[in-house]
Amino acid sequence: MATIKDVAKEAGVSVATVSRVVNKSPKASKAAIESVNAAMQKLGYRPNANARALVSKSTNTIGVMVGDVSDPFFGSLLKAVDTVAQAHQKHLLIGNGYHDATTEKEAIDLLINNRCESLVIHSKGLSDQELLQFAKEVPGLVIINRHIPEIADRCISLDNQHGANLATEHLIAQGHTKIAYINSEHDIDDSHHRKAGYQQALHAHGINFNEKYCAEAQPTDEGGEQAMIDLLSRNLPITAVVCYNDYMAAGALSALEKQEIAVPKDISLMGFDNGLIAKYLHPKLSTIDYPIQTMAKQAAELSLALVSGNSSMTKGTIFQASLIERSSVIKQESPDS
Amino acid sequence: MATIKDVAKEAGVSVATVSRVVNKSPKASKAAIESVNAAMQKLGYRPNANARALVSKSTNTIGVMVGDVSDPFFGSLLKAVDTVAQAHQKHLLIGNGYHDATTEKEAIDLLINNRCESLVIHSKGLSDQELLQFAKEVPGLVIINRHIPEIADRCISLDNQHGANLATEHLIAQGHTKIAYINSEHDIDDSHHRKAGYQQALHAHGINFNEKYCAEAQPTDEGGEQAMIDLLSRNLPITAVVCYNDYMAAGALSALEKQEIAVPKDISLMGFDNGLIAKYLHPKLSTIDYPIQTMAKQAAELSLALVSGNSSMTKGTIFQASLIERSSVIKQESPDS
Repeated sequence: MATIKDVAKEAGVSVATVSRVVNKSPKASKAAIESVNAAMQKLGYRPNANARALVSKSTNTIGVMVGDVSDPFFGSLLKAVDTVAQAHQKHLLIGNGYHDATTEKEAIDLLINNRCESLVIHSKGLSDQELLQFAKEVPGLVIINRHIPEIADRCISLDNQHGANLATEHLIAQGHTKIAYINSEHDIDDSHHRKAGYQQALHAHGINFNEKYCAEAQPTDEGGEQAMIDLLSRNLPITAVVCYNDYMAAGALSALEKQEIAVPKDISLMGFDNGLIAKYLHPKLSTIDYPIQTMAKQAAELSLALVSGNSSMTKGTIFQASLIERSSVIKQESPDS
Repeated sequence: MATIKDVAKEAGVSVATVSRVVNKSPKASKAAIESVNAAMQKLGYRPNANARALVSKSTNTIGVMVGDVSDPFFGSLLKAVDTVAQAHQKHLLIGNGYHDATTEKEAIDLLINNRCESLVIHSKGLSDQELLQFAKEVPGLVIINRHIPEIADRCISLDNQHGANLATEHLIAQGHTKIAYINSEHDIDDSHHRKAGYQQALHAHGINFNEKYCAEAQPTDEGGEQAMIDLLSRNLPITAVVCYNDYMAAGALSALEKQEIAVPKDISLMGFDNGLIAKYLHPKLSTIDYPIQTMAKQAAELSLALVSGNSSMTKGTIFQASLIERSSVIKQESPDS
């Protein structure tokens, strides 16, 4: 493989000049750029990104940690970050945290050790204190889908309570009062906040909250199916269900179908996320839109701005979810409250 | 930030000893490892991965290029590669190629410039010649979902023709003879081979191939809907449709639903991929399983084996798809051939 010396010789310039061209120094003359580029192409020379990173003390890489790349929710997040990265001639280094504290810590350490100055971190396993420590170490670290008050200006999050409140309010507006809630059993902010939003809506309309109307399981379609079977076994006069996410709603739908309980005729169903599957379900799922692409785009831009010291852009934001009406909710004709 | 000199001073050893510990040299003594690790932890010293990479001439990174990370098909591929990477204490650098020649070339260049010795490449835009050039440059490069005869032992691919043949054979076995084919309009091997598999099955059963029974569009649900509308407008006695992928089948299903044509009662439908959405459709989609996770795992292992020179593992494989029967196909009672 050709070395930088070979390129210098071929171009008839010094090694320092080749280095300036490779590192896009403003000191490189146009003639030098042309001859060096021609020599690099002829010899098949590849400037070593590791060497460049040592010189510039940074890489052209945005590090992203997500829960699990195979979940389309995180796929959307990554695509949005990648779009910003491409616009800035940067690329992505990706780690999976799987919502586990140890795995998350290892993934973030790897990204930092690889000199990612920009980091977009989706963490549900680590404590606020641990994340604050990382944030202190890496000025370009931005937190997505979580709000930590001490670094609020570096957090891009969703108001989960408002989202679940919106879903429940929609059902109440359609005359429902016997509303169940299927929650994720993960002990994370998202599940606590969404359940609080459900309770808040009931309270605002004088409907008593009853723990019997709540079930929890893994936030997957299997979990949703199991939670719905659990709820049905309690023999309650449920007319509507709010689900933690679209996957759980898909599982609940499947459980109801097997019992020949029609959605929305017998029971109305609300999802959360407005993910890929929502529109493929039958009936198409009414849900809460999680603007993950907009949020991820802003997180990536904020991270780059923090690194470049452009503080005018350095704003964290709490996003608001919005209601997506499809076909899984209908009016409850004779409310039996 | 602490430097390697600070660590040496704190640990009471030389800088060379710290370097040996950081680079896991067999020459480092147990006592040195302990004191250096303690000093690094105390001072919050992070060994620079770029510097280590320069010394060892490689990184701990597997580079992967996919079409689009936000497509769950590629999410599954990435997760499988990540599982192998984790088992080898490596991490992923990911690029999107979007099936475009220029974007693919840039993405692969970036991965190579970042000294990824292991590469798993999903390319549909570049020519065989361009990929052969990359393969020559990078001995650890493995091609996934494409077969290039010159480097067959570094290609992990699916027999697409066999898969589409299987889907069509399944419909013929159910008594269908008026079978349409909805293809991707992308000019890539996958669409050519799948259409050939459809034709092969018709031919094997003495059913005349008729171009009128074929439509093509973008390989998305919108494309599938458009292609189905196109087919319906031709007023043909179609009783079954083979689709290029599950998304196109979802779109075709949607078009049929709007025309109040029942699936499978009036028209049977076959997908391809057995992706995330297949089981959520209504009726659940009969389809062809694309073993992408198994294939991606093997591609990653093959790539690592090629880098480490363990040639016993260096085998390319052409995988065979299999039939997944769900609820979108029924027997054609009175074949009108």
